[in-house]
Amino acid sequence: MSQVPDLAAVKAMDDADPLRSMRNQFSLPEGVIYLDGNSLGPASPAVFNELAKAAREEWGEGLIRSWNSAGWFDLPVELGDRIGRLIGATPGQTVVCDTTSINIYKALHAAMGLRRGRSVIVAEGSSFPTDLYMAEGVISTQPDARLLLEGVDAPTIEELIDDRVAVVLVNHVNYKTGELRDMAALTQRAHEAGALVVWDLCHSAGALVVDLDGARVDFAVGCTYKYLNGGPGSPAFIYVAQRHQAEARQPLSGWWGHARPFAFEPRFDADAGIRKFQCGTQPVLSLRALKAALDIWDTVDMAAVREKSLALTDIFIRLVEAKCAPFGLALESPRGGAKRGSQVSFTHDHAYEIVQALIARGVIGDFRSPAIMRFGFAPLYLRYLDVWQAVEILEEALRTEVWKDERFAARAAVT
Amino acid sequence: MSQVPDLAAVKAMDDADPLRSMRNQFSLPEGVIYLDGNSLGPASPAVFNELAKAAREEWGEGLIRSWNSAGWFDLPVELGDRIGRLIGATPGQTVVCDTTSINIYKALHAAMGLRRGRSVIVAEGSSFPTDLYMAEGVISTQPDARLLLEGVDAPTIEELIDDRVAVVLVNHVNYKTGELRDMAALTQRAHEAGALVVWDLCHSAGALVVDLDGARVDFAVGCTYKYLNGGPGSPAFIYVAQRHQAEARQPLSGWWGHARPFAFEPRFDADAGIRKFQCGTQPVLSLRALKAALDIWDTVDMAAVREKSLALTDIFIRLVEAKCAPFGLALESPRGGAKRGSQVSFTHDHAYEIVQALIARGVIGDFRSPAIMRFGFAPLYLRYLDVWQAVEILEEALRTEVWKDERFAARAAVT
Repeated sequence: MSQVPDLAAVKAMDDADPLRSMRNQFSLPEGVIYLDGNSLGPASPAVFNELAKAAREEWGEGLIRSWNSAGWFDLPVELGDRIGRLIGATPGQTVVCDTTSINIYKALHAAMGLRRGRSVIVAEGSSFPTDLYMAEGVISTQPDARLLLEGVDAPTIEELIDDRVAVVLVNHVNYKTGELRDMAALTQRAHEAGALVVWDLCHSAGALVVDLDGARVDFAVGCTYKYLNGGPGSPAFIYVAQRHQAEARQPLSGWWGHARPFAFEPRFDADAGIRKFQCGTQPVLSLRALKAALDIWDTVDMAAVREKSLALTDIFIRLVEAKCAPFGLALESPRGGAKRGSQVSFTHDHAYEIVQALIARGVIGDFRSPAIMRFGFAPLYLRYLDVWQAVEILEEALRTEVWKDERFAARAAVT
Repeated sequence: MSQVPDLAAVKAMDDADPLRSMRNQFSLPEGVIYLDGNSLGPASPAVFNELAKAAREEWGEGLIRSWNSAGWFDLPVELGDRIGRLIGATPGQTVVCDTTSINIYKALHAAMGLRRGRSVIVAEGSSFPTDLYMAEGVISTQPDARLLLEGVDAPTIEELIDDRVAVVLVNHVNYKTGELRDMAALTQRAHEAGALVVWDLCHSAGALVVDLDGARVDFAVGCTYKYLNGGPGSPAFIYVAQRHQAEARQPLSGWWGHARPFAFEPRFDADAGIRKFQCGTQPVLSLRALKAALDIWDTVDMAAVREKSLALTDIFIRLVEAKCAPFGLALESPRGGAKRGSQVSFTHDHAYEIVQALIARGVIGDFRSPAIMRFGFAPLYLRYLDVWQAVEILEEALRTEVWKDERFAARAAVT
């Protein structure tokens, strides 16, 4: 699209949208334009119903028997395979369990174990911080290991990759800027130096075409509560390429990772497959909500999702730049779609206050320190008309300077 | 009680039970006598309602805003303090997060960090296995460390405790036999040798009087889905004594353990208090079910729970031994109440088949390899009459040898 669309053009895009009927499956509050699905995806009536069923029938009536009869015990691998389809992973390589942070720890330990004699973890200074914190945690248990950061120890991550590097830990889409990394190229670069890669898919799973197997990725992790809409804090996933599973070891060797968990043997004997990356008993109610949320995804073509995502973000950028030009906004995200995830960030000196003023008007995005307004675009439930209206409301907030109202100035503990 | 009670005596005990009204708060299936609350506690209508509210209102309507407005972010410490009241922990020392296995890993690492120069972890050969598996995991990251086991390396755990020992990892109540350890005495013995202790409360929290602060315990972990009735796989808890919090370090240093998680700083700086034992984003729907389940506990006197628990298990033992004497059962649990948790185990050569036959008749207990029939007694919802009827059904199953029916012979994957 080379021009700024008008309202008629926007409505025509909705009419022609092959994903438009998906919106009906979600429960979105009246009067809200939700541009924060990259932080917490919305709910759906089907999820509410399944969650109630899991509670009343499976837990309430089935009680302990439901570990077998309702398939609770196998949910992590069942849901892992279903997510696998969305991220280019054939079955048996993905399992849903624990948190993204915990899974990063497992993946980094496993990768370093597969590259003994190498002591360096490379990551991004601009990474979502928990990735770096977990790398610090891994290093705290390995006296010779150290962490080198893009933007601190060298300008680009590629310059840090040499034969000392055991593993490269990298975000597929940057959480602040929305910048997208070339998964295949960076993975190949790491492999050429003999290193392994751990990709963090938190901001790409469910929003982009991801091809882990095709890119020969070694490990990946990600969350399920953003674009996948699994519910607040729903368990994360970890992908381990089939070729590494036999040899890979991870120290969170709990009973769900045992080859025979119900034999209650005193010594740990890891499962031969992806189950070895499980640890302890998982939160079934949260898993059951995620299972219901994934029902929506089973019919979705990720190429269509990516196409619509690019169109939504492209139009948003064009409209904001056309209508809000006088008000001091600067685009922080890549202008070219090939380098952009499914979110758009603008900087502004008063980004925090503007985001609060928008939320008060029903346009929910979020603020990221120090001066970023971040807007996520989830193609399953957002209309092009939502983008149009969000920009109208943004323009009005900037033009009227309503954000200067003191009630938008106080910073909440969690943003 | 020195005699075997008759039915009238049993009914009189129910009439006099100060906890009898608590049963009304639970949702128990028709025709079920539930003696497996030591594995998965039952549901309650209030929990169903709260879970639906959390899903529909907090997630569905509040969306991302509920991290603040519904208090999601603070649930781990809020619920930790409420569990703390039940285990003798003053506020600020208990946090709900992750799984028991993960929390064992954190506690062992922290304890070993506080006892540098000591390399031994002592545990029980009869421990619930995940405790040992996690100790193996910790040791796998510490080349000089090793694990010594009661029953393998010495007959008693006390004999293993010397000045090489960094930490003693021990179950308060044995998961198979129900044997209860003396927390104060063993903790004191460890401290005299300069070691720290990690108590696993999975089979005692919500069933016994636990006094962590009074016993000068260093660390404790436990699950919330057994006697606390938090729902299948609800998140676990970890207790860290106030006196260790400033110095303790654990390597699962995720963003929820950061002093300023929403400042998104590139370097980890641990929270000064119990929050440093958190790691990643928690499963909110499961936490909200647990929160509702804890509402029941807020008014409960643990001394009354323990008193009824002892009476229930005592009567069960007496009735089984009186009525089932000819059928080859042998008591595996301690006969004296002072050494017994809230469960009773009997061995039988055909324990597996008998347990299956009982389940088919509505008496739900469980089997533990190789030959244990395990029955848990949760004082909040069990009546003395339930105990009477369960023994009647057990006696009939043994007398008629219905367990020889082939449909009770096949072993399920999960028991």
